[in-house]
Amino acid sequence: MGANMARRLKSQGFPITAVYDSNREIAESLATELGAKACSRLAEVTAAAEIIFTVVPDDAAQLAIFAQTGDSLLQGAEGRVFINCATLTPSIHREVEQRAEAAGAQSLEACMASSISQALEGTLYLMCGGKKAVFDDLRELLEPLSDGGKLLSYIGATGQAAQLKALVNMVMNINTAGLAEGLGLASALGLDLTMVRKVFSQTGANSRVLVTDGEDMVNRDHACYFSAAHAAKDSGIALKLAQDKGLDLPLAATTKAQYDKLVALGFGQLDKSAIAELTFPGRGKSS
Amino acid sequence: MGANMARRLKSQGFPITAVYDSNREIAESLATELGAKACSRLAEVTAAAEIIFTVVPDDAAQLAIFAQTGDSLLQGAEGRVFINCATLTPSIHREVEQRAEAAGAQSLEACMASSISQALEGTLYLMCGGKKAVFDDLRELLEPLSDGGKLLSYIGATGQAAQLKALVNMVMNINTAGLAEGLGLASALGLDLTMVRKVFSQTGANSRVLVTDGEDMVNRDHACYFSAAHAAKDSGIALKLAQDKGLDLPLAATTKAQYDKLVALGFGQLDKSAIAELTFPGRGKSS
Repeated sequence: MGANMARRLKSQGFPITAVYDSNREIAESLATELGAKACSRLAEVTAAAEIIFTVVPDDAAQLAIFAQTGDSLLQGAEGRVFINCATLTPSIHREVEQRAEAAGAQSLEACMASSISQALEGTLYLMCGGKKAVFDDLRELLEPLSDGGKLLSYIGATGQAAQLKALVNMVMNINTAGLAEGLGLASALGLDLTMVRKVFSQTGANSRVLVTDGEDMVNRDHACYFSAAHAAKDSGIALKLAQDKGLDLPLAATTKAQYDKLVALGFGQLDKSAIAELTFPGRGKSS
Repeated sequence: MGANMARRLKSQGFPITAVYDSNREIAESLATELGAKACSRLAEVTAAAEIIFTVVPDDAAQLAIFAQTGDSLLQGAEGRVFINCATLTPSIHREVEQRAEAAGAQSLEACMASSISQALEGTLYLMCGGKKAVFDDLRELLEPLSDGGKLLSYIGATGQAAQLKALVNMVMNINTAGLAEGLGLASALGLDLTMVRKVFSQTGANSRVLVTDGEDMVNRDHACYFSAAHAAKDSGIALKLAQDKGLDLPLAATTKAQYDKLVALGFGQLDKSAIAELTFPGRGKSS
């Protein structure tokens, strides 16, 4: 994801001065391609660039690259701006913002709801959280990544973009698990599933996941775009937010239980559409 | 609904010879408007018309108009065709088909997923179940009701259209209950709900019910298009079908429990969007 974002920005005339990856070979290959420096230490990135994008897999990795001791992006960070694109627990974004500000830097949360190919095409869906002035200053850089800004939104304070992304995925997961039940029952009833999908698409049952996952559920094509494990994780983040607010969300909880079950069955790395393995007759997983 | 269907057919050049309603005044008023006969007995309708549309509120009413003794549409029904538009338990449609055939008549199930105004405009979404030959013979009559046939589908044997309608509503109800959770949590987190709905609409959280119910959930505008009681009933029909097939559908069951809860709180006559009363903070119903 980070590599394709760098390629896109380079193609739009922005100089890419430095790249870093925990896998050194990947960093060197990309650096050669982009005419950038492959850094072996995080602090070298901070020294070489004014604006630094970070894309890491999880909370722990984010805290590690913004470590308060040892090699860290925070070393010599005064005046730098960090744009943090990983999907993290909202409180981690706030922690990173505080650490960045303590080091004299600024940060922006830029949550993505998109695929790797969209990064290269510059059509990322970007939801930003942070200080509005920081967002406004970075708009020129973010627009070429987000279809000229059409897919760019300022959501609110740091952490709120991550909250909203968790909400998007929570609702998406519910709709996915619900669609799997509808198609599974249609299959059990012997209905023509192509016709069922057409009727769903023309009625109150229509949804984005019907378009993206409906046919895959029928065909058991679970090549991964967004994994079942990821779905379970994001629904879990949303449920934790709900718990903190004293809200009871039974659909979200039931959906998380279904994805947890799928993960427990060893299918966590399949696409979220694999939830249909729990609801179609004859797939052997329905209890 | 039946009155508007009759008005539409009349406007398209089909003669309406007879009308019947359990409320005599309604039948007389409509008969005067359409130049038809207001029947006081069901058998008069059968005597006066070749093709007879039925639109009743529930299973019991359907069995009553097709009673095997006493006044009934089945009296003198040889050669008649019945088009049954009520949403019923699938097995009732099969029972009516058997009774009609025993009387020398034919029947077609024509499930609707539409509103009363769409009947008048001739843009009903019609899902038909029955013998394919019966459907084909009636196509000329059904097309002016369904946007020239664009919204007309042959689903399969009698009862399968009702099954599919129950599935459509089951999935719609899940999506509605899930959306209410997403917007409720967004509200609890202090996010701008107009922005949240926009982001949902542009991402994997998008759905038809986001368009039809999202704003109403935020504004607590629960004027009834499709009642919460109806939602509970239809999810129940689908769950019964699943149970008969040995399928476990936890999302559908959780959704039905939410709608049952809403009905128990006395809100069954509100629109299905009222499910948000259970999930928004400060609305006093969240446990």
